[in-house]
Amino acid sequence: MTAPLTPTLELAFDLIRRPSVTPVDEGCQELMMRRLAACGFEVERMRIEEVENFWARRGGDGPVLCFAGHTDVVPTGPLDAWQYQPFDVRVDEDGMLCGRGAADMKGSLASMIIAVERFVADHPQHKGAISFLITSDEEGPAQHGTKAVVERLRERGERLDWCIVGEPSSTTLLGDVVKNGRRGSLGCTLTVYGKQGHVAYPHLAKNPIHLAAPALAELAAEHWDHGNDYFPPTSFQVSNLNAGTGATNVIPGELKAVFNFRFSTESSVEDLQQRVSAILDKHGLDYHLEWALSGLPFLTQPGDLLDAVAASIRSVTGRETTPSTSGGTSDGRFIATLGTQVVELGPVNATIHQINERVLASDLDLLTEVYYQTMVKLLAC
Amino acid sequence: MTAPLTPTLELAFDLIRRPSVTPVDEGCQELMMRRLAACGFEVERMRIEEVENFWARRGGDGPVLCFAGHTDVVPTGPLDAWQYQPFDVRVDEDGMLCGRGAADMKGSLASMIIAVERFVADHPQHKGAISFLITSDEEGPAQHGTKAVVERLRERGERLDWCIVGEPSSTTLLGDVVKNGRRGSLGCTLTVYGKQGHVAYPHLAKNPIHLAAPALAELAAEHWDHGNDYFPPTSFQVSNLNAGTGATNVIPGELKAVFNFRFSTESSVEDLQQRVSAILDKHGLDYHLEWALSGLPFLTQPGDLLDAVAASIRSVTGRETTPSTSGGTSDGRFIATLGTQVVELGPVNATIHQINERVLASDLDLLTEVYYQTMVKLLAC
Ligand SMILES: [Zn+2]
Ligand SMILES: [Zn+2]
Repeated sequence: MTAPLTPTLELAFDLIRRPSVTPVDEGCQELMMRRLAACGFEVERMRIEEVENFWARRGGDGPVLCFAGHTDVVPTGPLDAWQYQPFDVRVDEDGMLCGRGAADMKGSLASMIIAVERFVADHPQHKGAISFLITSDEEGPAQHGTKAVVERLRERGERLDWCIVGEPSSTTLLGDVVKNGRRGSLGCTLTVYGKQGHVAYPHLAKNPIHLAAPALAELAAEHWDHGNDYFPPTSFQVSNLNAGTGATNVIPGELKAVFNFRFSTESSVEDLQQRVSAILDKHGLDYHLEWALSGLPFLTQPGDLLDAVAASIRSVTGRETTPSTSGGTSDGRFIATLGTQVVELGPVNATIHQINERVLASDLDLLTEVYYQTMVKLLAC
Repeated sequence: MTAPLTPTLELAFDLIRRPSVTPVDEGCQELMMRRLAACGFEVERMRIEEVENFWARRGGDGPVLCFAGHTDVVPTGPLDAWQYQPFDVRVDEDGMLCGRGAADMKGSLASMIIAVERFVADHPQHKGAISFLITSDEEGPAQHGTKAVVERLRERGERLDWCIVGEPSSTTLLGDVVKNGRRGSLGCTLTVYGKQGHVAYPHLAKNPIHLAAPALAELAAEHWDHGNDYFPPTSFQVSNLNAGTGATNVIPGELKAVFNFRFSTESSVEDLQQRVSAILDKHGLDYHLEWALSGLPFLTQPGDLLDAVAASIRSVTGRETTPSTSGGTSDGRFIATLGTQVVELGPVNATIHQINERVLASDLDLLTEVYYQTMVKLLAC
């Protein structure tokens, strides 16, 4: 590329060249905070334990639109597998912005900042307020990041009507998909108790593998719900299954299975827990369940935010966007607990968390425009 | 005990005080060989790799009765858990011979030697021949012990009609049970192939746990045969089951199950293998089976040897013995491949392989008498 970089790409370069692997921030947030302060934001650092976060807000009363995201990136993996070094950011001859974080999600952060700078310049007397909620621990344990910041905002009664999370939601072309919700995630460790013994004397033992197998088969075959207009059916997956001492002549004393539900709004946590217990009871098992709820499902129904986002995508790209709730969890689940309408909108996610992460450079300029138009629709006077 | 030790107990003491934990022999075999040579046996050491074995034979043409056994003992476990130190052999105030190997099987070895010495003294012109096949690796890998000696005997066409193995067969009272066979043992490692993926995207993965569970349930519920007059039904046990990377959000790529058949003479190895494959195929699994045959079943039907043993037990103890094929494998399986009638006859096995291993001292004197009478019935002129 001999052409000069656009403002969005220039800022993306500045962010990507900082090796901010979770939870390290490497000055990314400082850079963002300086830009926001310069256009009238009140900026508040929120370092919680080892995690850098910040909250920034500009405006007065009225509806609040928040841009949310993370400055941390996942580890690079083996450096010699990269075509270009992961933090040696560049736009290649195909027009791809290459580097760790290009898609997830430093490109989005750059687009947000540039869009906000332009919007504030064009509409200095905008309605309501604009805010930023940025963390450096979304890819890690995520306990002292967005989740903790949201708790502080809740405590002080901060208003937060709409939130755009910069997660790379697009699948093939910019804006083809936005996430308007996420399934819940409910994990569990199941222990089935038997009685240890020798394989030659099975009548003196109780083999927990034999006892558990039909119950596991039934759990795997169960239809938990049919989903709904917004959610695919709830899914159940066993991720780990272990029994045995390693010795080939010993019947093990217990079996452990780790499983996970990705669940729609059609099933409650309590329902799923009761139905699992009922199946285990039906098979007469002696067992213990250790449940761990990672996140409740959330859903942003059609309304102000989704309408504004869809119309902006249409006007910038000519595309009709598809709202979707599929895929993994994101920090959107924490923000949604404030009663906020949450939509995830970012570039194409094809290379995230991979070697040679990259995104079409011109898509980030389009994304800046989509964010800008969304602000116009929601906050322009 | 202030009474002097009987010859059987004196020899048992000499053997037990030698800490011959597998495969170490500590001179036990030397002691036995000297005694046998002194009463006319031709003795042949057969050290194979690191394992001490010997073969001894006395007599001419005609039927051959072999006494078989092992001088090695299992490890002691924690010494401070023993009431008396495991190699500090003694007869306690309840008349129990205490020490590692008292029951399994140095007591039997002492009884065999004393019985043979007396029989040879009483019947110097006995029919046929008496032999001994002794190893120091029955409790270990057992590759260079009885199995290897049997191969040498087979190569040179050694005749072996009857064999008494000194394994502790009795359950409550001396002679209440003899083993006239053992089930076969067939092991297998099953790998079920799926496709690794993320729990949030199950449609892109194939979970081998979900795929295998119904097949494992069916294998565990299967009736393989009904056994017969001599054998309990074939049993199937999964000893180890493992799948998963440890991560709770990853659907594993494969599952491994280790299982074992203890099988009767009603099922052949090939039958069992075909039936397992048929069940796996029926469930549409992509799998690999790695079979390992540890031993074919063997059975000594009523005949000369079993009759002689039963009659001797009756005359010495007044008890009717019960022939049984239950329990684990023993070196008898190797000897039986020579076409030999094999019976296991030894003291009560309640404490074998345990802390405070012990056996009623007077039972060993009875056992000497049972072995003696058996020789009289089979080999006296
Ligand atoms: Zn992300
Ligand atoms: Zn033994």
